[in-house]
Amino acid sequence: MKLMRIGARGAERPIVRVDDATYVDVSDLTPDFDEAFFGGAGIAGLEAEVSARVAAGRVERFAGDRIGAPIARPHQIIGIGMNFAEHAPELGLPVPPEPLIFSKSPNALSGPDDDVVIPRASRKTDYEVELGVVIGRRSMYLQSDDEAAAAIAGYVLANDVSEREFQQERSGQFMKGKSAPTFCPVGPWLATPDEFADIRSLQMTSTVNGEVRQNGSTATMIFGPLFLVRYLSQFLTLEPGDLVLTGTPPGVGLGFTPPRFLAAGDVVELAIDGLGTQRQTLAAAG
Amino acid sequence: MKLMRIGARGAERPIVRVDDATYVDVSDLTPDFDEAFFGGAGIAGLEAEVSARVAAGRVERFAGDRIGAPIARPHQIIGIGMNFAEHAPELGLPVPPEPLIFSKSPNALSGPDDDVVIPRASRKTDYEVELGVVIGRRSMYLQSDDEAAAAIAGYVLANDVSEREFQQERSGQFMKGKSAPTFCPVGPWLATPDEFADIRSLQMTSTVNGEVRQNGSTATMIFGPLFLVRYLSQFLTLEPGDLVLTGTPPGVGLGFTPPRFLAAGDVVELAIDGLGTQRQTLAAAG
Repeated sequence: MKLMRIGARGAERPIVRVDDATYVDVSDLTPDFDEAFFGGAGIAGLEAEVSARVAAGRVERFAGDRIGAPIARPHQIIGIGMNFAEHAPELGLPVPPEPLIFSKSPNALSGPDDDVVIPRASRKTDYEVELGVVIGRRSMYLQSDDEAAAAIAGYVLANDVSEREFQQERSGQFMKGKSAPTFCPVGPWLATPDEFADIRSLQMTSTVNGEVRQNGSTATMIFGPLFLVRYLSQFLTLEPGDLVLTGTPPGVGLGFTPPRFLAAGDVVELAIDGLGTQRQTLAAAG
Repeated sequence: MKLMRIGARGAERPIVRVDDATYVDVSDLTPDFDEAFFGGAGIAGLEAEVSARVAAGRVERFAGDRIGAPIARPHQIIGIGMNFAEHAPELGLPVPPEPLIFSKSPNALSGPDDDVVIPRASRKTDYEVELGVVIGRRSMYLQSDDEAAAAIAGYVLANDVSEREFQQERSGQFMKGKSAPTFCPVGPWLATPDEFADIRSLQMTSTVNGEVRQNGSTATMIFGPLFLVRYLSQFLTLEPGDLVLTGTPPGVGLGFTPPRFLAAGDVVELAIDGLGTQRQTLAAAG
């Protein structure tokens, strides 16, 4: 199943995607895809009714509505740093022996095609295509991959937008360069785990103005999604609807010599197999 | 004015403290002291009605209810690292030239006298008495101390509980050791800025089992609350109800030779002038 939220920013309504052209409106079944939804009846609670509506022809056609992030603003957004071996040298940092974790402010969340706003003082705004994991149940001290799998509601495509000067040259820590508004485009949809034959064999790409920058695969992650969810739960409690970004493959702007950062007017396009595509235009802060 | 929340965990109701013995119930005026409250009519919207109730004798007596954190779970909790010159050497780290920022998971929030739960794998759980700032309005790119002051709803006493091994020896970043459940006792009350003649002259103390460990003052902060709020707003958007912890004076357990970390059964007591006292018993994780 693929969950989406469409409509104006702050007024999105929850739907289930049927195909490129049609969807089932589920806003009468849940007000939003938020902590209460994922922690309650959740996705399993929708399946029978969505199937019945599809069978009855109760589908609607996409009509150019804005696409929002497929989840409401979460309780927390956690990023994993340098989770692809080839990416750490781009940042001038060693590969960590266990996951490096940082946060993004939850209100950085935005839709997959919304403008990305370059902060006022920014000189080094950068892109990072990432696989995101959405948590499906309250979790602490998970003990196995099976328990971690049971705690995952689904997967999303995300851009872990990063301001490198704020992140690395302003006395710390990473969150300083990860948290500006619009720095977390997510979507277009959340796909449930059953949609994937192997979450560790998805191609991930990013382009800037049509030029390929990142072309990697979830196969080369150091720590996989199940391990990461289990690992995080040893240190903190994950809430339903929380978002975990699992790291980016090499090819970010900082990795070029000289670096190639984003400027107003640039267009970033991202894709991960089975998770759709994103297209953002960079804009200057007002 | 002093805001409090009393009642069982997850079922606290908002009240306004009159004195040690009495309070005004305001749960009919707002469901909670949360983002919607601070971002709406907020504290200013309560004042006339609270005054009228006090004048009419509509006060109740404290009767042993549990005291919760005086704010609902916030959108984000941001900590400031090494904001007292003498504290950085205790961590073996240099004093940062500008604020070091990190996050605590919002669900680490707990009441001022709730047990602090030592995580399962912890060997280095530590205390930090801190002045907390509660944000009163949505804020980005604040330009002056006056704008920062207008964005502050009030101040709280907090314990920025920290697991030093998770924080410093597990591949980063600080949030890994700052985010366990119960790692953010806050309260007993939120005091509005008008309650203080000078927020930069408050004594801050912590004791463990009755022995004084920290005995500092907000006077020796490197970056004051107004600067910190303005500074943060250059990198991210602060939401109403967000909590900013402004750093701890020297005397934490890690600073002793050998270090003196907390164990189950220990009792930590904290105080800041005008912000009340906290008393936590350390407990082992289940």
